[in-house]
Amino acid sequence: MAVYTHIDDEALEAFLAEYDIGRPLAFKGIAEGVSNSNYLLETEKGRFILTVYEARVDAADLPYFLGLMRWLADAGYPSAAPVPGRDGEALRTIGGKPATLATFLTGMSATRADVGLCREVGRGLAWLHEAAAGYPGRRANTLGHDHWARMFAHLGAAAERLKPGLVATIDGDLERLAAGWPADLPQGTIHADFFPDNVFFRDRTFAAAIDFYFACTDALAYDVAVTLNAWCFEAEGSFNITKSQALIAGYEERRPLSRVEHDALPLLAHGAAMRFFLTRLADWAHPAKGALITPKDPLEYERKLAVHRAGVSLFGFS
Amino acid sequence: MAVYTHIDDEALEAFLAEYDIGRPLAFKGIAEGVSNSNYLLETEKGRFILTVYEARVDAADLPYFLGLMRWLADAGYPSAAPVPGRDGEALRTIGGKPATLATFLTGMSATRADVGLCREVGRGLAWLHEAAAGYPGRRANTLGHDHWARMFAHLGAAAERLKPGLVATIDGDLERLAAGWPADLPQGTIHADFFPDNVFFRDRTFAAAIDFYFACTDALAYDVAVTLNAWCFEAEGSFNITKSQALIAGYEERRPLSRVEHDALPLLAHGAAMRFFLTRLADWAHPAKGALITPKDPLEYERKLAVHRAGVSLFGFS
Repeated sequence: MAVYTHIDDEALEAFLAEYDIGRPLAFKGIAEGVSNSNYLLETEKGRFILTVYEARVDAADLPYFLGLMRWLADAGYPSAAPVPGRDGEALRTIGGKPATLATFLTGMSATRADVGLCREVGRGLAWLHEAAAGYPGRRANTLGHDHWARMFAHLGAAAERLKPGLVATIDGDLERLAAGWPADLPQGTIHADFFPDNVFFRDRTFAAAIDFYFACTDALAYDVAVTLNAWCFEAEGSFNITKSQALIAGYEERRPLSRVEHDALPLLAHGAAMRFFLTRLADWAHPAKGALITPKDPLEYERKLAVHRAGVSLFGFS
Repeated sequence: MAVYTHIDDEALEAFLAEYDIGRPLAFKGIAEGVSNSNYLLETEKGRFILTVYEARVDAADLPYFLGLMRWLADAGYPSAAPVPGRDGEALRTIGGKPATLATFLTGMSATRADVGLCREVGRGLAWLHEAAAGYPGRRANTLGHDHWARMFAHLGAAAERLKPGLVATIDGDLERLAAGWPADLPQGTIHADFFPDNVFFRDRTFAAAIDFYFACTDALAYDVAVTLNAWCFEAEGSFNITKSQALIAGYEERRPLSRVEHDALPLLAHGAAMRFFLTRLADWAHPAKGALITPKDPLEYERKLAVHRAGVSLFGFS
């Protein structure tokens, strides 16, 4: 959750003067998103989410993200559509910071997803991969596999502080991931953060996805691996194979995985756990100043790494 | 702003099962309120604010607060109305904490109020005093004038750390306030925190008041004094007498102040500055653990104390 930027009424008035959405009726900071500030804005013409981009988002990437959101909305995918100002431009500024308005989505996130919801998650992710196909934007995965060794190079002391002996273990993982990482998987636009906070349901059906600010061009199966890690571990640390089977089955209803993708999934899931372990370790070692966020526990993903290191089956056979 | 409690979907489902307001469509933590967690809840039947009471609110006071909100709504005052569960009870629990649902109010707070809005603020406050008349609930002002010396007794070291020499100055203020505090002012139910965050406007007209969790039984004119301090100082520290005249004029459109109340206002405003100085100093000296709040600057109210100590005119004559 995060509301970093205080928007005063003069700044809001100046911002809304560039739109044709009527006068404001309600405006509230909301606890959504981790790398930007979000506000619920109600006007005479409807309800919107105002997003103000903070330092953590590279402003040069914003046209890619907003273009993707526009593309997905036009393709009928249930995600927020950017609302352009009178001049047709969706990326604007408020109080000197980049900002955008998008349509408000209903739907509820699920704190604890059961097997049925995991199948819906898989369907929602495959639908996203389908809907994004053809999007001409390209963005390298700046938190992808070829960055992990460099990221960890600065985090050795933090890792040992977190758990003595961890540097040697992680170095071993990094070697194994680098040696085995598949180069030939189908690429596309991936969400890269399809976590419970970012997925909405309605009546136990996938309803919408939000927060495309980690989206990038990478292997589609890697997005499945990130999503398996986010949804299929139980709170006590065990991997729930019934959930992972359901998630993959839901995915394959819309987009069947190739044999190569299927075989790569265990290593991709090991790598996906590495990516979230590394950013959480970095946030834990260097908490953002003034952030209204409690850093997420890096040990959660250290335990997920251990599960994948030991070679868990994701499908019920190996 | 504050969202302290994470409400998971199972807790929300169990809570909503006690109401007759349909299924949830959207649920978002919002940055509103300082002593509780607030969520925007949209269901098939409408929009609501879910408030979860944190340790800072005394649970024994909740029937008084909710009774007042019910009373005000029944009297036609624009404030949130508690929504009872199926059994008629509005005060319930969620995740083991006291909680309530109330109707959602539209309206926008004003960051910088001009003279016209200050008149509206006065009208809104007098309307509140009128609407609350007859409410049978009673609650002592636990942050009122007879508590200030005791509150400050624990804060001497913090005061000197904030500004060397401050203890002697505050002790002098406290003596003067104790010696002159009027005992014969008309009493009633006061909001006691009628600050910009808690007042909504629509089309430059007073639209609603929120956050009744400091409400208590005290002198009505003391509420005017709290409100003058909150709205009529400029950012650079000067007192804007045009705004105070407008605020008082707006108040007197609905409820004329007696001669005694009028004459007491300068001392009441000095005391009201003391009350907010003391709680801000305490929060600054002992920040709440895990709070997602930046303590408000005690020096803001230290400067307001100095203005009242020097004897500013609130009305343009003295």
